[in-house]
Amino acid sequence: MKLHNFSAGPSVLPREVMHQASEAVNELDNSKLSLIEISHRSKAFIDIMDEACERALILTGLKNKGYKALFLQGGASLQFLMVAYNLLQNKAGYLNTGTWSDKAIKEAKLFGEVVEISSSKDKNYNYIPKNYSIPLDLDYLHLTTNNTIFGTQYKSIPEINTPLIADMSSDIFSRNFDYSKFDLFYAGAQKNMGPAGTTLVIFKESILGKVSRTIPSMLNYQIQANKDSMFNTPPVFAVYTSMLNMRWIEAQGGINSIGKKNAAKAELIYGEIDRNSRFEGFAIHEDRSDMNATFNLTDPSLAQNFDELCQAAGISGIKGHRSVGGYRASMYNALPIESVEVLVECMQVLEKKY
Amino acid sequence: MKLHNFSAGPSVLPREVMHQASEAVNELDNSKLSLIEISHRSKAFIDIMDEACERALILTGLKNKGYKALFLQGGASLQFLMVAYNLLQNKAGYLNTGTWSDKAIKEAKLFGEVVEISSSKDKNYNYIPKNYSIPLDLDYLHLTTNNTIFGTQYKSIPEINTPLIADMSSDIFSRNFDYSKFDLFYAGAQKNMGPAGTTLVIFKESILGKVSRTIPSMLNYQIQANKDSMFNTPPVFAVYTSMLNMRWIEAQGGINSIGKKNAAKAELIYGEIDRNSRFEGFAIHEDRSDMNATFNLTDPSLAQNFDELCQAAGISGIKGHRSVGGYRASMYNALPIESVEVLVECMQVLEKKY
Repeated sequence: MKLHNFSAGPSVLPREVMHQASEAVNELDNSKLSLIEISHRSKAFIDIMDEACERALILTGLKNKGYKALFLQGGASLQFLMVAYNLLQNKAGYLNTGTWSDKAIKEAKLFGEVVEISSSKDKNYNYIPKNYSIPLDLDYLHLTTNNTIFGTQYKSIPEINTPLIADMSSDIFSRNFDYSKFDLFYAGAQKNMGPAGTTLVIFKESILGKVSRTIPSMLNYQIQANKDSMFNTPPVFAVYTSMLNMRWIEAQGGINSIGKKNAAKAELIYGEIDRNSRFEGFAIHEDRSDMNATFNLTDPSLAQNFDELCQAAGISGIKGHRSVGGYRASMYNALPIESVEVLVECMQVLEKKY
Repeated sequence: MKLHNFSAGPSVLPREVMHQASEAVNELDNSKLSLIEISHRSKAFIDIMDEACERALILTGLKNKGYKALFLQGGASLQFLMVAYNLLQNKAGYLNTGTWSDKAIKEAKLFGEVVEISSSKDKNYNYIPKNYSIPLDLDYLHLTTNNTIFGTQYKSIPEINTPLIADMSSDIFSRNFDYSKFDLFYAGAQKNMGPAGTTLVIFKESILGKVSRTIPSMLNYQIQANKDSMFNTPPVFAVYTSMLNMRWIEAQGGINSIGKKNAAKAELIYGEIDRNSRFEGFAIHEDRSDMNATFNLTDPSLAQNFDELCQAAGISGIKGHRSVGGYRASMYNALPIESVEVLVECMQVLEKKY
């Protein structure tokens, strides 16, 4: 019945998570009430929020390590602002790897000096900058671990002495790496975590309290932390469904196991892109994202043929972003490798037939 | 099966809306995809957002009258901040009718001079202030049309020449009045509109552009308006379910018809509060809210007896807010009058038995 959903976000979630979320909208756990009509101050929902926060810390290996997890609203775009509002006193550094880094830089400039430490704009962001020097007086350094639009991803995290902040919207929970290198990271839910409408923020509690400005309540990490993400009514459905999805990730063997599956999917698609004479990849090899594979036809006149093949095979959501063109196959945690196999088959059929 | 859900918010929604929302989480309109895994840039979702905005304008009688409707994130609490960020250049007036007005005042003070024009704090907010004078040099006057915690509601809207702004979180779409008296009003969804996670903001487009500060993108009404609520990924599920609920309101005969039903429910409960020797109302008669009836036992030692009666009858969510104590029966649009009848019966049984 289902399509092969390569959408860049909102994106595929596990079938069982969607079924459970669907059931809870009718009735939550035999409570005779729907998930969406219970008070957020009820024990039932407080348990859900607590479990969501705890699972986020466990999955990232940060439980009992001085970190706090929050589920907020507003997406990564509101975090661009909140990070600067809460942490930028004098000067911050940003690594610019694409559209989203660029937006983060724009918002931060309202609050202090912003240094663009490095940028890959010269080649339409098809690589991750590697050689740069970091000033010693930065309040923090900000980077985007995965660049959804351009299909690039940090394979290693810079070793620095400056507080490190990351937008992980499109690769959180997708691979096993050392999350404790970051002082704060955030992720809009709608790729690997859950439905659109909530944003996970995880931070070292010790980084707060260092700016002199007054921070509005809703944008204040300390206030949100003091209230355990319940300063006001949280986005109940999105938090609940994210929690279900984190249960699913654990049932899959955790991030380690998920990371291997994601690597296998990426190997399959990139192997075909490199082998198939009809396609070429956009991002440079060493920085290719395991989440979003960007590629183009070598002969653009075959676009309609390829689109028809994909449509007939039930493939959805592979049109590239307008900044890059061509195709983008987003392969988040819940996308089965079978979907990638179907896409690879379409690529092979195109090569044979045309 | 269902409980009588008097929760103050998140709160009861129509059964058919919850069923439709539940189905869409499994599959949206035979699309072979779930509502929560489609791109927000897909035609399917753009149609949903457009319909939601249009229905909000139609229900409030503001279509083609120079108003814009937006579905944002962050709840009314983020609007406390956004209103001031976008509209407070020098001085604003606030009518303080309770906790939520108070919070709005607190956030506004970060952006300019705030004058508390009037307050009912002297009597723990059990009435709506009526005699006050409004300075001529205000950028706007802000009020809270319904006070969920204290159970008071503006029965008429002040006739003034100053731009008027209202928090309508707990009574939007609940009664027929002249929404065009307001220059901007907003409502967190989780009472009369839909599930928690989105906030409706409706404003006259002509009120923007009058402050000199730079407004961060996510907090900027003009930017959000230019992008038709899609500056970033919107809270898909909450917008969709709110749209379904607005369809339901129309099918009920619109706000006019809903308002009559709400008045009948209010008359029923307040009639019993006034008649029954075991209970007394909290708010003064003329300012009683049709949405939230606040009342106390005349003999607090009967609390356990009353709670047991209510529980046995399947009544949920009538515990009063800690600022008032006692009981609060929230009777939003989707609460059937039968639920109020059951509550009234419990009140009568208490009087007879004890």
